[in-house]
Amino acid sequence: MNSETKPADLAGYLTWCKTQVDATIDQYLHVPEYREERLAEAMRYAVLGGGKRLRPALVLLACESVGGRVEDALPAAAAIEMIHTYSLVHDDLPCMDDDDYRRGRLTVHKKFDEATAVLTGNALHALAFEILADHGGARAVREVAHYIGTEGILGGQMDDLLAEDTRTSLEQVSFIHLRKTASLIIASLRAGGIIGGATSEDLDRLSRYGRDVGLAFQIVDDILDEVGSTEQLGKPAGSDRARQKATYPGTVGIEKSRERAREFAESAKQAIDGIPDRRETFVALADYVISRDR
Amino acid sequence: MNSETKPADLAGYLTWCKTQVDATIDQYLHVPEYREERLAEAMRYAVLGGGKRLRPALVLLACESVGGRVEDALPAAAAIEMIHTYSLVHDDLPCMDDDDYRRGRLTVHKKFDEATAVLTGNALHALAFEILADHGGARAVREVAHYIGTEGILGGQMDDLLAEDTRTSLEQVSFIHLRKTASLIIASLRAGGIIGGATSEDLDRLSRYGRDVGLAFQIVDDILDEVGSTEQLGKPAGSDRARQKATYPGTVGIEKSRERAREFAESAKQAIDGIPDRRETFVALADYVISRDR
Repeated sequence: MNSETKPADLAGYLTWCKTQVDATIDQYLHVPEYREERLAEAMRYAVLGGGKRLRPALVLLACESVGGRVEDALPAAAAIEMIHTYSLVHDDLPCMDDDDYRRGRLTVHKKFDEATAVLTGNALHALAFEILADHGGARAVREVAHYIGTEGILGGQMDDLLAEDTRTSLEQVSFIHLRKTASLIIASLRAGGIIGGATSEDLDRLSRYGRDVGLAFQIVDDILDEVGSTEQLGKPAGSDRARQKATYPGTVGIEKSRERAREFAESAKQAIDGIPDRRETFVALADYVISRDR
Repeated sequence: MNSETKPADLAGYLTWCKTQVDATIDQYLHVPEYREERLAEAMRYAVLGGGKRLRPALVLLACESVGGRVEDALPAAAAIEMIHTYSLVHDDLPCMDDDDYRRGRLTVHKKFDEATAVLTGNALHALAFEILADHGGARAVREVAHYIGTEGILGGQMDDLLAEDTRTSLEQVSFIHLRKTASLIIASLRAGGIIGGATSEDLDRLSRYGRDVGLAFQIVDDILDEVGSTEQLGKPAGSDRARQKATYPGTVGIEKSRERAREFAESAKQAIDGIPDRRETFVALADYVISRDR
């Protein structure tokens, strides 16, 4: 694996990242004889069931962009995808969003059962930290743990649930998005940056890029939920509206939401200005994120 | 806080540890204005609701026993208790053991709701690793993550659920106990040892002691569930039997189980022989663990 073989265009780069990351995840989820089979099987089902691997690609990209080697960041990239999957598996539970489908397949609690889904999420959570400790060091662990904790994903998920069936302001929606979605994107970029030896200025650039791309990403997700087909989404469309979720389109309408997503993408591009390498990939990625709803 | 003020007898030592650990946990769970209130409240309810703080005491004891300073191990001790609590909160969920009471109070999903209980467990899990990364380093994170993962607690919980309503051999019961209960006790001792600067020989001693004390502890827990009163337990007695859990008394009867617990306690005392300091506390603790059912 060396940078000569890496495709220059974004689509090729993302596909290349996905192949590398999936191979790494596969190795980590290889099942020794003595390991509990049902749990191992559910973990593999959950993580290896498709997905664009956007967050792990950001880990690799951030590492490269500050002069690090992709191969040094691959374990952390796999760990970030495990954390993302853990949060999805728990988010799909009947007591949370109660979703039966994810990426066009049955969710873990439907394919197995609820107890297995709870344990599978927890096992991916723990394994991710084991990997991060080994291949990212204490600093990467601390940062990722922070961004997925009460001030990150979990605080956002809690607020998201509490906001159901209530009127929310755009400011509240943004704050939920920031924590529920942007946090893990920021954590991905910072973990890659730390492993690549980023300066604190570069980590700031990566954080601001991650925040804005993350906010754009969630707005587009909300728009897709309104206008996309079930086939496109891999799960029933319109579920946010049915549940009266706090969304951008639900608060300011589709057109204003598209505009806001474009603004966030532009702001992300400005934030990443001055990053040592791979700036054009960051720019293409920001455009890609908002192009998903066309 | 210095060793002069620490009581020499076990009961006094445990009480002293509990005071220190609870004060540390309280600091970590202090709620800043911007933090999600419901989640913060549920985390405090879950962790600060009593309990003997046995595992954090083991972190402190292990640290001291190899020449480390108690104050250096206090954050890790708090983190271990958060992990223990997270596993209890999830274990109590309706899809898992479905318990309404814990330590004489409503469980988190009964006091709040299921979604809050899932998120509370996850938030304690993440916060524990944030603390461990800061105050134990990458090695402590890796070890704890390993012992609470698929080959530790989570593998044990999965097997424990699968073993319900089936006939299990004593060997299978022991293997479940080893992972479900002994794993976190081993992790507590090793984390304290690592922070205290233990040699690999001392870490081996701590691991073997933890394994045997952990196995004795779980057997006594199973006996208490059979013979204890609801008042003593803080939850309904006989629930293991009702659920046909894989237990020692269920497999070989109460008397043989008591005998086996005593053997494990003796074996633990032998394992800890040669530890530089605090050997008498380890011995008293092994005796205390098996005396709980008298």
